[in-house]
Amino acid sequence: MTESRVAFSQLKLFVTAAMAHLGLPAADAQVVGRLMAEAELQGSDGHGAIRVLPYARRIRAGGINLHPDIKVIQERAGMALLDGDNGMGHLVMARAAQMAIEKARQCGIGWVGSRLSNHAGPASLYACMPMAHDMIGLYFAVGNANHLPPWGGLDMLLSTNPIAVAVPAGDEAPVVLDMATTVAAYGKVKAKVQRGETMPVGWMIDRLGQPLTDPKRAEEGFLMPIGGYKGYGLSLIVGLLAGTLNGAAMGSEVIDFNRDQASITNTGQAVMAIDVSAFGDVPAFKARVDQLVRELRASERMPGVERIWLPGEQSHERRIANLRDGIALPAALRKQLDEFAAEAGIPALQAL
Amino acid sequence: MTESRVAFSQLKLFVTAAMAHLGLPAADAQVVGRLMAEAELQGSDGHGAIRVLPYARRIRAGGINLHPDIKVIQERAGMALLDGDNGMGHLVMARAAQMAIEKARQCGIGWVGSRLSNHAGPASLYACMPMAHDMIGLYFAVGNANHLPPWGGLDMLLSTNPIAVAVPAGDEAPVVLDMATTVAAYGKVKAKVQRGETMPVGWMIDRLGQPLTDPKRAEEGFLMPIGGYKGYGLSLIVGLLAGTLNGAAMGSEVIDFNRDQASITNTGQAVMAIDVSAFGDVPAFKARVDQLVRELRASERMPGVERIWLPGEQSHERRIANLRDGIALPAALRKQLDEFAAEAGIPALQAL
Repeated sequence: MTESRVAFSQLKLFVTAAMAHLGLPAADAQVVGRLMAEAELQGSDGHGAIRVLPYARRIRAGGINLHPDIKVIQERAGMALLDGDNGMGHLVMARAAQMAIEKARQCGIGWVGSRLSNHAGPASLYACMPMAHDMIGLYFAVGNANHLPPWGGLDMLLSTNPIAVAVPAGDEAPVVLDMATTVAAYGKVKAKVQRGETMPVGWMIDRLGQPLTDPKRAEEGFLMPIGGYKGYGLSLIVGLLAGTLNGAAMGSEVIDFNRDQASITNTGQAVMAIDVSAFGDVPAFKARVDQLVRELRASERMPGVERIWLPGEQSHERRIANLRDGIALPAALRKQLDEFAAEAGIPALQAL
Repeated sequence: MTESRVAFSQLKLFVTAAMAHLGLPAADAQVVGRLMAEAELQGSDGHGAIRVLPYARRIRAGGINLHPDIKVIQERAGMALLDGDNGMGHLVMARAAQMAIEKARQCGIGWVGSRLSNHAGPASLYACMPMAHDMIGLYFAVGNANHLPPWGGLDMLLSTNPIAVAVPAGDEAPVVLDMATTVAAYGKVKAKVQRGETMPVGWMIDRLGQPLTDPKRAEEGFLMPIGGYKGYGLSLIVGLLAGTLNGAAMGSEVIDFNRDQASITNTGQAVMAIDVSAFGDVPAFKARVDQLVRELRASERMPGVERIWLPGEQSHERRIANLRDGIALPAALRKQLDEFAAEAGIPALQAL
């Protein structure tokens, strides 16, 4: 059995139906369904359809509040702190992004953090939201399982703590960086298991410092930070900004959501919006971004390199291709989703 | 001849006298002298005394405006954009940090960017300024020479574009990350030349992709980004935030200040302040940072690792040791500074 393709609209409907079946109110199920389908659409395969079952397990275990009262608990003109009331992270972060955009419209910049949130999918989803308002978006999050020790250490006290930044362009695709502060995100390790592939050397090491390439053995080792101690520092800083500052979990407080389905994760995240118009003329800015993008792309290349890519450009092209051709899902994942649908009594995903 | 030690207070006086000799007004010379001596004090040896001669060359070539009218050209409640009028970067960034702090006091967060600024020393100097006001500081800058091609490319269109973030703690040293988005900063390459040392494999490669370890051959190759394409993305994003957004130089517009002493660099930087009190109780936050720091430090260690360090902790200890024992300067650098002093008719640095 090989991979099959499903339409974006079908995947959105399917995930929405799954979330509604699990008990989310219709409007909330739609938000989560749309954002999870968008994650899959842009190629974030560790954050799309693959998460339906883990989310279902957590919801069924009582680990998610299906009727959260998401509220502002601290606020100034340029910032707010949200209490997510243990709701789905997508709902908390969609609200945070909206508030950050409103604050940036007034103050030029807006920053909204969260506590008591949950896993919200790929960082770029929320960094990209301000772009519709000609704003730059930034997103920081504490990952939901610790896979990284401090540099030189063995105790896994840090997570992949991602950073995303999205910068609107003119005619070019926006520049969107979405990176774990580890060489690989843990979602990518899980996707390797699903696809039955091995990991490249450099993603993980075992406790003796030896390369670990079998993703099924992931629990025996830990992820490597980018640039050695620099990535350790970045992961820690992201955790301080998205977790500690918000009164959310950091370090040993982080709940491993792969092992513990029921405990409140107290996930911390933050979205920032920067209003380009506060700095000057928006079309002039976008033209400068376009010019820079073209200059980088036109660089002389190393032998064997066919094309210079900009951050986010491959996701942008994948998004267009997936909208046109449908989204490829691995056979093993399709099978799991079909079983879930049958059990839940919702319509199965239809392949194209 | 080996290295000699000078007192911090002496170095500050010496650099101030050097800057005044070069034509900076007394108050401005003091600001630059203090910040350059502080850079050396914390161990940023690529940004302290070693920069006196390059700055002198630029000033004498007419590349710096000695009487800049540093002014706000865009402003909202939470942000401002400064025109540095081609003054010394230290003056522009000290002003930017002060404004960001004031804005954060009102809005919870403040962001101040610059155009027409110049090299300002180590990123952490400005990220640390908000900490005196119980604020978190962030700093982004476009480097003043391109040493990094886009990933897969050969044209050096990007710089080391550093990021610094400083988070206040309670009894522990603050957590201060100050990192180039390349494996090594170019200032470190220059320091290797001064010290007559070779570079580790991984800092630079030549145009054929081979390791380059002789720092005197640095012009034949380029710096490596951290985490491969991730570091390339980070460098670009920092450049977009600190350069393009501010109407400052990016990409091919960046002036190589090692080769061109007279052209206006149009350097872009940005300082952000986040007021911890906007998010909740400040002592409680600092206690959480202390707890996290201690937890990381207490991690079980890999074989051969004597101690787990936190970002900024070694600089913090070096600062204390250097205040007590004096700052070590390489013999070659001392000789250059002595020659400069004799020529300028200012008192030479006195060794301890």
